[in-house]
Amino acid sequence: MRLFRFRRGDGAVGCGVITPDGQRVDAGELARDYDEAFFERGGMGELREWLVKGAPGGVPVLEDVVVLPPVARPSKIICVGQNYAAHAREMGGELPSEPVLFMKASTAWSGPYDHVVVPRDSEKLDYEVELAIILEKRGVHVEQTEVRNIIAGYTVMCDYSERAFQKERGGQWVKGKSCDTFAPAGPELVTVDEIADVQDLSLWTKVNGEVRQHSETADMIFSVAEIVSYVSRFMTLLPGDVIATGTPAGVGGGFTPPRYLRVGDTVEMGIEGIGEIRQTVVSGLRDIPLARRGGTE
Amino acid sequence: MRLFRFRRGDGAVGCGVITPDGQRVDAGELARDYDEAFFERGGMGELREWLVKGAPGGVPVLEDVVVLPPVARPSKIICVGQNYAAHAREMGGELPSEPVLFMKASTAWSGPYDHVVVPRDSEKLDYEVELAIILEKRGVHVEQTEVRNIIAGYTVMCDYSERAFQKERGGQWVKGKSCDTFAPAGPELVTVDEIADVQDLSLWTKVNGEVRQHSETADMIFSVAEIVSYVSRFMTLLPGDVIATGTPAGVGGGFTPPRYLRVGDTVEMGIEGIGEIRQTVVSGLRDIPLARRGGTE
Repeated sequence: MRLFRFRRGDGAVGCGVITPDGQRVDAGELARDYDEAFFERGGMGELREWLVKGAPGGVPVLEDVVVLPPVARPSKIICVGQNYAAHAREMGGELPSEPVLFMKASTAWSGPYDHVVVPRDSEKLDYEVELAIILEKRGVHVEQTEVRNIIAGYTVMCDYSERAFQKERGGQWVKGKSCDTFAPAGPELVTVDEIADVQDLSLWTKVNGEVRQHSETADMIFSVAEIVSYVSRFMTLLPGDVIATGTPAGVGGGFTPPRYLRVGDTVEMGIEGIGEIRQTVVSGLRDIPLARRGGTE
Repeated sequence: MRLFRFRRGDGAVGCGVITPDGQRVDAGELARDYDEAFFERGGMGELREWLVKGAPGGVPVLEDVVVLPPVARPSKIICVGQNYAAHAREMGGELPSEPVLFMKASTAWSGPYDHVVVPRDSEKLDYEVELAIILEKRGVHVEQTEVRNIIAGYTVMCDYSERAFQKERGGQWVKGKSCDTFAPAGPELVTVDEIADVQDLSLWTKVNGEVRQHSETADMIFSVAEIVSYVSRFMTLLPGDVIATGTPAGVGGGFTPPRYLRVGDTVEMGIEGIGEIRQTVVSGLRDIPLARRGGTE
């Protein structure tokens, strides 16, 4: 299945699903939102049954709707740092012996085509394409062999980062990772069964059409199964939570001299079999009509 | 006002408030929960008006209820590290030139008298008493002079920390800060108007009756106003969010040799004018009846 969320005409959140024959239908009969409560009550199973029956009552979703992130603002966005060897090296770090974890504020969560806003006083805005895992079920101390059973699916996420905030303002990375619009994701939640091998997908970033990142999920130091199992040793994962699995080499800060983003730049990212997202860099939130914002609601 | 949450007989969350004459009354008529939606819709004002009218229809809350954390699981728990000079020194750090921020997973949120669970593989469980700020209103780039207007009030929080997870497992602190039960808070949300000067309160921790931490909020390096204003430059604060303001000297890891917590220990903490909380250290979640858990729901 491929699930997506969109903005209804009245401003409310709409839930959609793509049928096996490629139709984008409104699943509002089954889901008010793809959120913690939806996953917790087994909403994915209900959706699957409804599709098997031919999605009765499901009207088409118009092509020109605003696409929101594929799940509601999660309880947490957990990220893995330095999970591709070449990226760890370009950032001047050593290869980690166990996953490096950090968090993004959930208010950074935004839609796949939303603008990314340069924060006030920003000097070094950077991009990071990441395969993001979305959890379906609660998990704590999950064995690697059981990880598949608690994942709803995958999506594309950009882990936007302000390197000066992240590394030059004292202490932990969270300051450079949490600004509004710093976690655009989508366009769809692609369920586990749609992906033959999640560790065999190419992923890429283009800035203004120029390829900057291009790698394979096979190059992850820690796999999806290892990451989810590992994170679940330190905190309880909740339905709808997001775990981003790290970025490959080619970020702006890895170039000499660095190539950070500027207002007007277009960032496109994709992961094979998952989808593509695209943001334009803008100077302030005032540039974004309220109806286009998915993040902090 | 003093707001509190409790477990109803049927397991549901109850909302209570302490009247000016000290009665603990059920505010269920006005609030289903003290959560983001409650604060966002101006619930604090409604509660205030209701109290002025003598809390019509408000029945007493029984004395023996289980007390939950004073607000629902927040969208984020942001913490300030090394905000008391003597603590920064005991942990071997330098004094920060701007606030050090990190996050705790919101699943760590728990009740003021809940047990604290030693995580699996834990070696170095430690305590940190902290004044916690609870936000009433959304805030971004908030001026220090405006901070008071977006704060709902204060509570006592223990920032439980597993020092080996925090500092010896690679990368960022979040792993040592986020385990379930690592953020017990309460017993009440004490509104801003109840506290004459939030920078002039004593705070303390006792372990098994022995005083371990004892300091004053006057010793904070960065004040409440500075902290909230600072955090709001890096992320949007939402109603119900929690910001913990750092801990004074005297944590277990600061002793030579270190004095970490053990199963069976009792940790008591208090802040002048705010309240007192108390946890017992237990070995596993199975020791905690479901009805007593406030955290991950």
